[in-house]
Amino acid sequence: MENGAGNEAAAAWNFAPNDSLVGVTALSVRGVLGRIIAGMVEDGGGGDGERPVIPLGHGDPSAFPCFRTAPEAVDAVAGALRSGEYNSYANASCVGLKLARRSISQYLSRDLPYELSADDVYLTSGCTQAIEIVCSVLARHGANVLLPRPGYLFYEARAVFNGMEARYFDLVAERGWEVDLDCVQALADRNTVAMVIVNPGNPCGNVYTYEHLAKVAEMARKLGIFVIADEVYAHLTFGERKFVPMGVFGSVAPVLTLGSISKRWVVPGWRLGWIVTNDPNGVFRKTKVVDSIKSYLDISTDPVTFVQLIENTKQEFFDKTVEVLRQTADICWEKLKGISCITCPSKPEGSMFVMVKLDLSCLEDIKDDMDFCCRLAKEELVLVLPGCAVGYKNWLRITFAIAPSSLHDGLDRLKLFCLRHSKPKM
Amino acid sequence: MENGAGNEAAAAWNFAPNDSLVGVTALSVRGVLGRIIAGMVEDGGGGDGERPVIPLGHGDPSAFPCFRTAPEAVDAVAGALRSGEYNSYANASCVGLKLARRSISQYLSRDLPYELSADDVYLTSGCTQAIEIVCSVLARHGANVLLPRPGYLFYEARAVFNGMEARYFDLVAERGWEVDLDCVQALADRNTVAMVIVNPGNPCGNVYTYEHLAKVAEMARKLGIFVIADEVYAHLTFGERKFVPMGVFGSVAPVLTLGSISKRWVVPGWRLGWIVTNDPNGVFRKTKVVDSIKSYLDISTDPVTFVQLIENTKQEFFDKTVEVLRQTADICWEKLKGISCITCPSKPEGSMFVMVKLDLSCLEDIKDDMDFCCRLAKEELVLVLPGCAVGYKNWLRITFAIAPSSLHDGLDRLKLFCLRHSKPKM
Repeated sequence: MENGAGNEAAAAWNFAPNDSLVGVTALSVRGVLGRIIAGMVEDGGGGDGERPVIPLGHGDPSAFPCFRTAPEAVDAVAGALRSGEYNSYANASCVGLKLARRSISQYLSRDLPYELSADDVYLTSGCTQAIEIVCSVLARHGANVLLPRPGYLFYEARAVFNGMEARYFDLVAERGWEVDLDCVQALADRNTVAMVIVNPGNPCGNVYTYEHLAKVAEMARKLGIFVIADEVYAHLTFGERKFVPMGVFGSVAPVLTLGSISKRWVVPGWRLGWIVTNDPNGVFRKTKVVDSIKSYLDISTDPVTFVQLIENTKQEFFDKTVEVLRQTADICWEKLKGISCITCPSKPEGSMFVMVKLDLSCLEDIKDDMDFCCRLAKEELVLVLPGCAVGYKNWLRITFAIAPSSLHDGLDRLKLFCLRHSKPKM
Repeated sequence: MENGAGNEAAAAWNFAPNDSLVGVTALSVRGVLGRIIAGMVEDGGGGDGERPVIPLGHGDPSAFPCFRTAPEAVDAVAGALRSGEYNSYANASCVGLKLARRSISQYLSRDLPYELSADDVYLTSGCTQAIEIVCSVLARHGANVLLPRPGYLFYEARAVFNGMEARYFDLVAERGWEVDLDCVQALADRNTVAMVIVNPGNPCGNVYTYEHLAKVAEMARKLGIFVIADEVYAHLTFGERKFVPMGVFGSVAPVLTLGSISKRWVVPGWRLGWIVTNDPNGVFRKTKVVDSIKSYLDISTDPVTFVQLIENTKQEFFDKTVEVLRQTADICWEKLKGISCITCPSKPEGSMFVMVKLDLSCLEDIKDDMDFCCRLAKEELVLVLPGCAVGYKNWLRITFAIAPSSLHDGLDRLKLFCLRHSKPKM
């Protein structure tokens, strides 16, 4: 809609962009994948109709029939929509959302040593908004938050936008991506408000033991900081270790648990998430974190009123999803062993991802992880996330949560690409 | 879930609430109505089953059968949901949302002297998130934004949360709530980034003429500030004046138009809104406002993927809604004339509201507008918004968008209440 005629100087309009928004796109998974896709499409990729694009970049398998959500979940939402009773603002139809909050509290209480109530649950528009809310509420000028590396840089972008500093502690690849607790202790000071722990792990695909989580809680207590437990991949585990919610340790250190229906129900487009206060000692109430969350929700958008289900989804749907993930994690693990310039430190046991190390010294003409991913997309129509998008330069995050046949195809193409770009053996 | 046993000092946990969130609830329509309702319920109101509660407080008539949304809109959303093709992240299914953006650009272009493209449209989770995004993008420390009084204090809360100052210009009751442009000029300085104009008016129910909007645009141009046009009540007009979108003047001053399906389709719970750049001269691009919006969207939640319709809704649905509003606005205007302690400066011609002045000198035992509304709710089960929630102490905002029979009932009760509390005539 821009016309050449009115060629006014932009200088007449008084605006300077907010510094904390500059460069955000370079940090976000969405932004980085967007750039890779744009490069692929520009080069004519993705449109030849012969080879399909294989999406190993993002955690959203909902387009594959084997990951289609449960019919009873669709029925529940469609029924609420058709009833006409849920067209209102969510806060106007309190009963509806109170029901949803109660059912989420009951759902989560099954795995806890105490009972949550509906009042411990705050509904959000997906886990993205849950992170926004938590960062907005905890931020104040001069405060800092401790984040895992590799990790989801969205936390950093939101923290920095709200004037809070982000500090990174290491996850240790050699110890199944455990938290380096000495590092946490060294980073914390009296302005540290919280630490983030992601379990099951994104991007690492690890699952933490009960014992390790207990140590994390003890460290948080020692430092006097809250724990933000990002459990959006809760129950998506398929290895030896069972998922243990961080809320189990809520009486050791107060825990804000973030979750959503996006991953377990495979419906990221439905945008229903939650923040839960796991805090039997009432610290969040006493320190006014609860008041701040309520205030922030008063000036925030709500989730869609008629998307409120959860209760009646059958266990067999969840079992089937985990079974497909177990199978695709196996395929991924086996196939990656056969690719010489890629090292996978441990077999994924949860979530939808694995982190692998790129050995650039074996490759002839690849500059770095971003270059690798851009050229892989152009040449083989395979999308993979470069490690830079999760704070881990020259690694890759590979999503195995797609249909098994597509995964085979994608990893074969990845292998071909690596062979083609390998240095000749001496 | 709180237990008495672990009685630890909250002081051990290092947290101080963010000042800009304290008091937010007192400012929001949701927060103020929440307090009034809580008082009513506490007093046993709303539960007697004999007299229904009459909601003249908020702008959400969706619960009334005469405001039930169009069946073709429900069919479109239910169809998208059932297809299983819209369970993905919105950005993953680009085609879907590109379609929605194109249909919104076409829908809005009908009333403009130029064509918008899909790229001028940014989808949001309702107009609430649109306001959040615009305030976040335009804010920087030291900047200020000009807001109408009476007005929607949500803008102030969002501006202040992002470190921007809110300054209020007057709307003039005697001139059909026109903008006091001298006041705008006096408030603006070199740190002013934008002014907000709400048309059709909330809370005033006014509709601006083409000529007045042209003057607003000229003033914005003179001051070098952007216009934020809140048009969430677009096309809900039923008086002499037709709705003119501010975007008509986009080449005079760059306009960010905010809208949603909440009001015209009567589905506030569906959470689909938009920000549109009305800017034929490309100022938003040159000043990097567009880049900032895109960056902020990269770290924000999206609207639900399968809620994307609009195109196929029949004109007769819109006509019917406007007809009911015309009828209820008439009822409201006539009935208010018969209440002596209330003055209505002008008949509403748009939106769902009217602002009326409370004459406290006629009333015996009412302290202020908040006291009036709390006691009205307790004694008569009628909810009305006190003016303090829209920055206009000792006025009331009355919603007439409810079923005509309920409106009659509610206004009769309001009259009874006023009579009961009137000072005896000398």
